[in-house]
Amino acid sequence: MTLLDKIIKEIKPLDNAIMEEAQEKLNALLKPAGSLGKLEDLVKQNAGITGNIYAEFKKKAVIVMAADNGVYEEGVGATPQAVSLLVADAMTRNLAGVSVLAAHAGAEVFVVDVGLLPDVNNPDIINKKIRHSTGNIRKEPAMTREEALKGLEVGIQMVMDLSAKGYDIFATGEVGICNTTTSSAILKAISGEPIESLTGRGAGLTDEAYENKKRTVDDAVRVNKPDSKDPIDILSKVGGLDIAGMAGCFLGAAYCRKPILMDGFISGAAAVLATMLNPLVKDFIIPSHGTAEPGRNTIMKILDKEPMLLMNMRLGEGTGAALAFHLVDASSAMMRNMGTFADIGM
Amino acid sequence: MTLLDKIIKEIKPLDNAIMEEAQEKLNALLKPAGSLGKLEDLVKQNAGITGNIYAEFKKKAVIVMAADNGVYEEGVGATPQAVSLLVADAMTRNLAGVSVLAAHAGAEVFVVDVGLLPDVNNPDIINKKIRHSTGNIRKEPAMTREEALKGLEVGIQMVMDLSAKGYDIFATGEVGICNTTTSSAILKAISGEPIESLTGRGAGLTDEAYENKKRTVDDAVRVNKPDSKDPIDILSKVGGLDIAGMAGCFLGAAYCRKPILMDGFISGAAAVLATMLNPLVKDFIIPSHGTAEPGRNTIMKILDKEPMLLMNMRLGEGTGAALAFHLVDASSAMMRNMGTFADIGM
Repeated sequence: MTLLDKIIKEIKPLDNAIMEEAQEKLNALLKPAGSLGKLEDLVKQNAGITGNIYAEFKKKAVIVMAADNGVYEEGVGATPQAVSLLVADAMTRNLAGVSVLAAHAGAEVFVVDVGLLPDVNNPDIINKKIRHSTGNIRKEPAMTREEALKGLEVGIQMVMDLSAKGYDIFATGEVGICNTTTSSAILKAISGEPIESLTGRGAGLTDEAYENKKRTVDDAVRVNKPDSKDPIDILSKVGGLDIAGMAGCFLGAAYCRKPILMDGFISGAAAVLATMLNPLVKDFIIPSHGTAEPGRNTIMKILDKEPMLLMNMRLGEGTGAALAFHLVDASSAMMRNMGTFADIGM
Repeated sequence: MTLLDKIIKEIKPLDNAIMEEAQEKLNALLKPAGSLGKLEDLVKQNAGITGNIYAEFKKKAVIVMAADNGVYEEGVGATPQAVSLLVADAMTRNLAGVSVLAAHAGAEVFVVDVGLLPDVNNPDIINKKIRHSTGNIRKEPAMTREEALKGLEVGIQMVMDLSAKGYDIFATGEVGICNTTTSSAILKAISGEPIESLTGRGAGLTDEAYENKKRTVDDAVRVNKPDSKDPIDILSKVGGLDIAGMAGCFLGAAYCRKPILMDGFISGAAAVLATMLNPLVKDFIIPSHGTAEPGRNTIMKILDKEPMLLMNMRLGEGTGAALAFHLVDASSAMMRNMGTFADIGM
């Protein structure tokens, strides 16, 4: 049995008994029942994940999967392909958006090269390169099925290793020029929805480039014919290695019983694939922000989630998930520190 | 000239030159232009308010206005009236929701008795009592015009005093059983919209009590006939002293050139009144969460704001605003710590 098979098989559901215990304590807190909304939901979810109604998270990790995409040659990116590595490098020098927002939330960033095009000479980027960029999905599969499986296992292994080191909450992030194109193709393959509702302007495309991007996504699905029920087929044919790595992170977090914050559009596409591999994974995912990409609605519908933050952000990298750490911490503080009706003699 | 007249007259617009300077720096940061969305908007707004593109906020104050409402006798509250003072007391003992969430965001809570029904014997509650509860707005005005003016000045003075002590960002909060009823009446008087879109179930009403609440709001406006263009007339006839105090806080913050976070529905009603007194106030207000109360949409439309947080919260107290401090702090961190394209040689 492969690592992936083992993980998928051994994920257990949330612990309902401890969630009920959390609910009882929440009801005793000094407030109308349910009036702290999603802060209460977070406490319950994290209780069900960790087995502790007073769970708090002291070692936070943002795992950033970095990979390039062969579809770049179709002109679907607003940014030169070399920027993938430049930004990955900047992350390790604390210059990138996710570096700053993660540090502000007390989280560390781990950058993983799972498929960047160039060779990487930065010892602070974790080398898990599976191949040098994927293929151009408008013409060919992104990667082989075996490479997709390897990508998933990179993510699983990252979470398992960091969990073993005491990291107790995770967030997904990514860098890879053109990965909104691959994410759109994944959602198209799964949902069959109209391309306009699945594809946006990414980092900032012109009208003409946007039309080309939509045609490219449609072509990718038409040419590769991914099986809409087989997440690994979809991932290998029209996905990317960053998405494979992040999908693995979601699986790994569910297996390790650690909550995992989902960032925006690309993280969301990875989350959808992970939940197709095991639907229980959904309960370990915490949504963060409502990205500006239109495909967010399809993702949220499939995952039955709702964003907590509406910041109109579309940077990716894990920036939205990093912001949401504050909300998880606030929920822990509420549960641990708020008084009860009994405390005030009611 | 009264303090209120002076404040209203002397509020100046945002500083456009410094906002343009902030925009230039934001464009140089290592990200597609505008891709950090509302974090960028916050930086610009706070630059325009404070004159500093790198503004950061180290002394944060949540000002909680506590007052009772005579309309309680109509059965429109889900909670006994004595709870207003019990919760205000709990806030000073760090047991309330706002205490915990403010502390978690590094903010202090100042509880002001502007009109609680009972005498208050808690030295940690600031005594600015104008009267012992308001009148029952279903039958009579909430207060005199003079009392409404006094309530506004309490808020102005609180912000001026705390500004003088170095507090550099504010948030509004409140406690007062039945204050969603008075807030709904204010919005009804201003907007004339259907009562269903302005009135919710507050802390948790039964169907029957909800129907009664809607009739009560309609009756309050019909009986008192507030002038829809005169915010002080509206405030005195169908408002409350907590709302008067908070409206004063918004005016005071604009005068002192300090950003002020708006909490949920009741804070929003106060913000609307403040902006009617001087439309420039709008630019000093930072929205926080989208409360579960339906009237939020009318408030956001009038103020031309959009919530940053969708937490399904409806506790009030300032809890949503307290959460949003994290987002303001994150925006400062972004501006101060992110690298530029130049830093990576682009």
